[in-house]
Amino acid sequence: MPSIITLTTDYGGKDAFAASVKGVILKINPQAQIVDISHEIAPQDIWEAAYTLQSAYSHFPKGTVHLAVVDPGVGSGRRPIIAVTEGYYFVGPDNGLFSLIYKDAERLRVHHITSTHYFLPNAGPTFHGRDIFAPVAGWLAKGIPSGNFGEEITDFMKLNVPAPKITGKSIEGHVVHIDRFGNIITDIMYKDIQPLLAEDADLGTASIILAGREIKGLKKFYAEANPGEQGAIINSSGSLEVFMFKQNARTILSVKRGEAVRLTLAG
Amino acid sequence: MPSIITLTTDYGGKDAFAASVKGVILKINPQAQIVDISHEIAPQDIWEAAYTLQSAYSHFPKGTVHLAVVDPGVGSGRRPIIAVTEGYYFVGPDNGLFSLIYKDAERLRVHHITSTHYFLPNAGPTFHGRDIFAPVAGWLAKGIPSGNFGEEITDFMKLNVPAPKITGKSIEGHVVHIDRFGNIITDIMYKDIQPLLAEDADLGTASIILAGREIKGLKKFYAEANPGEQGAIINSSGSLEVFMFKQNARTILSVKRGEAVRLTLAG
Amino acid sequence: MPSIITLTTDYGGKDAFAASVKGVILKINPQAQIVDISHEIAPQDIWEAAYTLQSAYSHFPKGTVHLAVVDPGVGSGRRPIIAVTEGYYFVGPDNGLFSLIYKDAERLRVHHITSTHYFLPNAGPTFHGRDIFAPVAGWLAKGIPSGNFGEEITDFMKLNVPAPKITGKSIEGHVVHIDRFGNIITDIMYKDIQPLLAEDADLGTASIILAGREIKGLKKFYAEANPGEQGAIINSSGSLEVFMFKQNARTILSVKRGEAVRLTLAG
Repeated sequence: MPSIITLTTDYGGKDAFAASVKGVILKINPQAQIVDISHEIAPQDIWEAAYTLQSAYSHFPKGTVHLAVVDPGVGSGRRPIIAVTEGYYFVGPDNGLFSLIYKDAERLRVHHITSTHYFLPNAGPTFHGRDIFAPVAGWLAKGIPSGNFGEEITDFMKLNVPAPKITGKSIEGHVVHIDRFGNIITDIMYKDIQPLLAEDADLGTASIILAGREIKGLKKFYAEANPGEQGAIINSSGSLEVFMFKQNARTILSVKRGEAVRLTLAG
Repeated sequence: MPSIITLTTDYGGKDAFAASVKGVILKINPQAQIVDISHEIAPQDIWEAAYTLQSAYSHFPKGTVHLAVVDPGVGSGRRPIIAVTEGYYFVGPDNGLFSLIYKDAERLRVHHITSTHYFLPNAGPTFHGRDIFAPVAGWLAKGIPSGNFGEEITDFMKLNVPAPKITGKSIEGHVVHIDRFGNIITDIMYKDIQPLLAEDADLGTASIILAGREIKGLKKFYAEANPGEQGAIINSSGSLEVFMFKQNARTILSVKRGEAVRLTLAG
Repeated sequence: MPSIITLTTDYGGKDAFAASVKGVILKINPQAQIVDISHEIAPQDIWEAAYTLQSAYSHFPKGTVHLAVVDPGVGSGRRPIIAVTEGYYFVGPDNGLFSLIYKDAERLRVHHITSTHYFLPNAGPTFHGRDIFAPVAGWLAKGIPSGNFGEEITDFMKLNVPAPKITGKSIEGHVVHIDRFGNIITDIMYKDIQPLLAEDADLGTASIILAGREIKGLKKFYAEANPGEQGAIINSSGSLEVFMFKQNARTILSVKRGEAVRLTLAG
């Protein structure tokens, strides 16, 4: 069975950055199956990379090595790390990129990568994706134990991720992502709504307030709304999402990441 | 020989949608070789996906599974289907996405996918690409017979695809696609022009009318035109195409998909 | 060990061009591992393709076949070629696309591809990537000797690549690329600067002039600059690069490729 390595970066699709990373991996580990998660993370946007990686990582087979590089501190003192959970390996800079992985993990071990003999010779100051993270991922996927790359650390960096606040029958959360379709994803999760629901409650009577507008009720699928109509839904990741059927809700509502959203249950 | 699965979607390259689909496939079928046809189909543009898939599918080895998802009706009553032709498998929603495949096929069988035990557990309402189509494609490429996924149907959806009209020595067709280079592709095919050609006829004297402009004669290759000059050509797919050498014809002519185009042969 | 074929083109990610190339390769060589270097080369921009290919090719395992197609002369008299260096194969049009490879190569042999029986039947005039270069790359990666595809030639095309000029303690070069982050890459290389450095010299006192602005000193890593501050650095490819920390230098400086840049050492 081939070893799988995924890539999540802000390298873009135009330059040769991602391809150089792949070449280095394949030189070390020609059997590796490399899968792009995204190279279109906005430059230096650590949160977006963290969110995108979280959306995808668990759908891959156990043992997959997830390489992620959004790395404004490249070449400075920030540490290269390997995070090991019950199912996956994560390789990248210690700048909070794996914060959402740390939250999900049942078991977690983080290693500071210090074994420079795994690096490309003459690693430069601007491209650790190619010179450090790619070879480490290649060797890791080849079976080198994570402990061989460096000592375990406990003071790894975590982004400050604000949790939604529950007050009575109301949850106040935030926009965490806006996707290609303009769908506005929030951190209000169905698993947090469920305990608030009276036994005979109906999400169809919930009220959602976003950007000064009210949306009444949740739809069960997109096409329940009319084209251009604004709606809310619990999406397939269990998140409250605001959409416009066959339109781009972002363009019309001009909502930004981080903006507040409130869901209030009836009764 | 590895089984090949291609992907044609409107998921874009920024979000983790396509990667989640790939992860699900690889969990089921680690030997699968996954090839992107395009994830940059315009959101909800079923025709563009149909056209793009038709451009590429037959270049893949026989037995390839082509997964395509442009799916505004996701979660509603629209059916998930598998289409089987003499050489390929197609997996996606029954919304007309495979219309051009149906036209090409010599043999065709379409199954309504109803065997939910092949789906991901707890399939949600907004992401059937990941929860339904990916696992079905993974199992199909692993050798599960198409009949195991559900009953054959005959009332599958087809887009209304207008055919070019031939009147004497003239063919009136439509712009069906505009590519990255701004080349304007039409549904006027060389195989339809050929029978109209007198034995001593010369395509060099044909006249093409598009967007109120006349182009005289067909070029044999792009560089026969001067830089910035407008030209027409029978392209490598046998379609009449309007181009501007080393320029973007779309930008300059502001032509839209669906617009009429007329080719008239001399004599 | 699977044979690796990389792709560098101006086909974009939206259309089915790149996928058709991959399908053709996999029909001939189902074991091939295909890696995208870039499909986002600006249309017809031969230099950008040459630069991008040079950035990545040597990171791949020896024996890799690099297929590159930016080909405004497709269908005309321009020749299809295979270039063979000490480590790699290159397949594409003879229009200067491989100029930087020729400069790097210690050993070099170039073949004019004339053995049409390796082409797809009925190769058309507009898509040699699919009809000629893809099958040739597929067969080449399968082990067909490069000599089987056609005679060696010596009059292959080279782009005129101006070299930086050294005058005393000063080097005048050019902007050769601007990357996704807006970093401005020049052809002034550390290996050219090094011989000019007095034994006790310090790059921290060098002066860089670009677009009428002076940058004093070189940073050792990006984060040494303040956010939004302009800096210069020797990047991980050994090139002098101008950046703005956490900002896009291109947007702010509006520098273009080809523009002059001068580095002057103190003392």
